[in-house]
Amino acid sequence: MDTPAMDFPAAAVRHIDEIASYHAHIYFSAETMPGAVALRDALSARFSVRVGHMHQTPVGPHSANMFQVAFETSLFATFVPWLMLNRNGLTILIHPNTTYPRHDHDRDSLWLGTPLPLRTGILPLVHPSADEAGPPNTTPDPNMRA
Amino acid sequence: MDTPAMDFPAAAVRHIDEIASYHAHIYFSAETMPGAVALRDALSARFSVRVGHMHQTPVGPHSANMFQVAFETSLFATFVPWLMLNRNGLTILIHPNTTYPRHDHDRDSLWLGTPLPLRTGILPLVHPSADEAGPPNTTPDPNMRA
Repeated sequence: MDTPAMDFPAAAVRHIDEIASYHAHIYFSAETMPGAVALRDALSARFSVRVGHMHQTPVGPHSANMFQVAFETSLFATFVPWLMLNRNGLTILIHPNTTYPRHDHDRDSLWLGTPLPLRTGILPLVHPSADEAGPPNTTPDPNMRA
Repeated sequence: MDTPAMDFPAAAVRHIDEIASYHAHIYFSAETMPGAVALRDALSARFSVRVGHMHQTPVGPHSANMFQVAFETSLFATFVPWLMLNRNGLTILIHPNTTYPRHDHDRDSLWLGTPLPLRTGILPLVHPSADEAGPPNTTPDPNMRA
């Protein structure tokens, strides 16, 4: 996780406009799945985001069950702190989406709760384009404030 | 770190307007201090924040050398992602400041890089007021973009 930031890419200082969107990966076990479902419902009622399936087996680089939430950079200052206050004890990985997928997930990510192993070796170092958040699939309740 | 979110306070859903400000704690060792100094200079040139001393012995709940950056909630969406992309391999704790200092530091915080132990038992569970960021002491260069 702690590869020095300067090895790749070579630029001394990176700019946040490299970031096209973010993913939150919210991990759960059979035991904590009810809390994950409650959190998924609560966030879907408050934020216009793209919520993925409840994966009940590990997929991609992930080592535990999880669901993904793709969100626009404009939501970072509300959605991330709301998760900090309301994560129900669950571990959450939040990573940027740039053209460097492997580093997005390990070196350049952040964690709420205890970090989990990631098989980031399966991710490309460089990708021609950065993932967009995609169309939201939630319908926030205007009476629910973050 | 993974105390269930529901035990304290009892409210089912917390709102982000509880958060008066944030602290970033940027940890370093004798070996990584040059990277920490470079990061301190780089962030001071770009963000209007309140930067603390380079503590070369552990203070308060911290188990390693660090410097603190206090910042307004309005900077969360730029300063935090900029740190994600430019942290020079350093571990960074970012925590909200609410009226619950102990949980701010452990349960409700986030980490960039490998988390470090915190002696949060020395912090009060409840404090009458939430810490404000305080007056900025940096003079960002308008030509330096985040």
